Amino acid sequence: MQETTKAEDPSATFTGWAAVPNGHGILQKWSYHPRPLTADEIEIKISHCGICGSDIHFSSEGWGPITRPAIPGHEIVGTVVKRGDAAIHQVGDRVGVGCIVAACRKDPCEWCAKGEDQFCEHMTITFNAPYKDGRGGISEGGFADRVRVYGDYAFKIPSAISSPEAASFFCAGITTYTPLKRYKAGPNTRLGVIGIGGLGHMALQWARAMGCKEVVAISGRDNKREEAMKFGATKFINTSDKEQIKAAAKSIDLCLCTNASKDNNWDEFLSMMAPLSQLVLLALPEVPISFTGSHLVNQDVAIIGCHLGNKADIEEMLEFAVKHNVRPKVEKRPFEECNEACKDVHAGKPRYRIVLEMDGAKSEHQ
Amino acid sequence: MQETTKAEDPSATFTGWAAVPNGHGILQKWSYHPRPLTADEIEIKISHCGICGSDIHFSSEGWGPITRPAIPGHEIVGTVVKRGDAAIHQVGDRVGVGCIVAACRKDPCEWCAKGEDQFCEHMTITFNAPYKDGRGGISEGGFADRVRVYGDYAFKIPSAISSPEAASFFCAGITTYTPLKRYKAGPNTRLGVIGIGGLGHMALQWARAMGCKEVVAISGRDNKREEAMKFGATKFINTSDKEQIKAAAKSIDLCLCTNASKDNNWDEFLSMMAPLSQLVLLALPEVPISFTGSHLVNQDVAIIGCHLGNKADIEEMLEFAVKHNVRPKVEKRPFEECNEACKDVHAGKPRYRIVLEMDGAKSEHQ
Repeated sequence: MQETTKAEDPSATFTGWAAVPNGHGILQKWSYHPRPLTADEIEIKISHCGICGSDIHFSSEGWGPITRPAIPGHEIVGTVVKRGDAAIHQVGDRVGVGCIVAACRKDPCEWCAKGEDQFCEHMTITFNAPYKDGRGGISEGGFADRVRVYGDYAFKIPSAISSPEAASFFCAGITTYTPLKRYKAGPNTRLGVIGIGGLGHMALQWARAMGCKEVVAISGRDNKREEAMKFGATKFINTSDKEQIKAAAKSIDLCLCTNASKDNNWDEFLSMMAPLSQLVLLALPEVPISFTGSHLVNQDVAIIGCHLGNKADIEEMLEFAVKHNVRPKVEKRPFEECNEACKDVHAGKPRYRIVLEMDGAKSEHQ
Repeated sequence: MQETTKAEDPSATFTGWAAVPNGHGILQKWSYHPRPLTADEIEIKISHCGICGSDIHFSSEGWGPITRPAIPGHEIVGTVVKRGDAAIHQVGDRVGVGCIVAACRKDPCEWCAKGEDQFCEHMTITFNAPYKDGRGGISEGGFADRVRVYGDYAFKIPSAISSPEAASFFCAGITTYTPLKRYKAGPNTRLGVIGIGGLGHMALQWARAMGCKEVVAISGRDNKREEAMKFGATKFINTSDKEQIKAAAKSIDLCLCTNASKDNNWDEFLSMMAPLSQLVLLALPEVPISFTGSHLVNQDVAIIGCHLGNKADIEEMLEFAVKHNVRPKVEKRPFEECNEACKDVHAGKPRYRIVLEMDGAKSEHQ
């Protein structure tokens, strides 16, 4: 396999919208030279990229200061326009890229060998992460015209799924699918979903498709009720009404928390959990998580983190989505309006996921 | 079955050491009339009772104000001296009683049907808990000369286990045995034990007997090292040395936290947890548990509560202890010195469990 240690390919220039130090979350147009294309890599012409809460946490420096211009975006969809000789995709293939663009790959570590590459020490996330494969360079995300990635981190998109819809699967989709699969959501599960947004509206649909006994949408806003029921909820709890929380005491077997608000009341969430249940955190609050331990300890409840799926899960998810007709509800916005779109995501406005669309993409894959 | 709705049997008077309102944790001698003995109950003449951290949390009002005199103690060992006609034990049987003295029993709820009676809504803990069986009365614990309980919450003690040692199994033993069993501790497990005291020294022994790949004793005090190794630890981490914590990053697959200190640094504990691992809380701090979510979410770690075992687990544990020669290291103290003994427990002095002993018990069961 032909590789090089040069971190930059000066013959190529990719242009995107970058978060910058002290940029107050305002993305700026920025160009960079990608890493040289190796034999098992592909170059993708990006048609769509979803906006995720973590793009906002990152670009607004909520998770810590930014030290260099960095292009966010990790719900990437596009078409292969170049390929290395050994790449698994062909030019013209429509592919998606999610949160991870590399792991140890060739000489599998414990976690790669188990198929859980998301825990690999050499795992590289899709944006602003130094590659750990010895070739140097830093990953740049999908708020851009192009991206180069290893072929095994690009997934062929089933023809039944449109490109703007496909984008949301690569973070919102897999983030919600993975814990439902791992913790065995099924006909015996009273499932809760806290936060009915980009992740939540996917979770409700997965849960319905998996045949969960109850699907409880949990939100602070009553205006989410009606649509939540359409997505698959069988019950709605408005957390601003304390009586509804009390009435739901110990009633949920598995709960996905998609809400990273610093105002989350963890004790209230925990009070709704049944004995031996799991409350799974899918989003990372910018402030510490704090709760009194009594309900956790008395009911043997678990608070569990979960943030990425593995490669096999992504492939399985796409098939499952086609089979059960699970689709994100997306709102398309031009890439040039990415700052306005990010502001809307920050304000919790999307119903339910915003996907940036490149000029000219529209005619290709709707 | 003969039952009565009278909450008191005026013909019997039991005497013990009670926590009292505003008593500052000082126990006072106090007598009460027990509930009338029903057909499936037994009366136990208590020879020994262990002192557990939760007795101290309770009697010092750390978990909330005490509203009436109440006898703590839930590691009870003694001899059956009276029995109802239908009781499963015989007069003279040596039995132990743990944290629970009743559940719905006759008409099993979901949890009792599953054999997880510790989650039953009608579950009654061993001290200061109103019975929910319709007969009235409040449970009184084992810091006393006698106690009456349903026979199915008293467990016959194998002859290989001495009475003072037996006591510690009924809380410290089962509290540590249950999560190791539930979360499948075995030859693939790198097990951590935080806090090498009454619970911790049992956990180390169970872990060795279960053949854990590594058994890591984690303590803030180096003077626990040597004995921890004798109990089964293969490695020792002193948490007051930050380098040792760093070196142990992501190295533990399952960890029992027996330390309820308000100074626990949860982020440090979490940093030592491997991907997809479980940090199990066996003790309930008096202050909220607080941590930044990043390690939890990035490594899919679980923080799980666990506090009681079920009846089948208690029976299994006693057999396992005999087979694998697991024994608590206990220090016997006269019942009359219970206040001094409690002070020592509060100060973390026991090596490793203090068991109160009745006058005259010594000759019977050593």
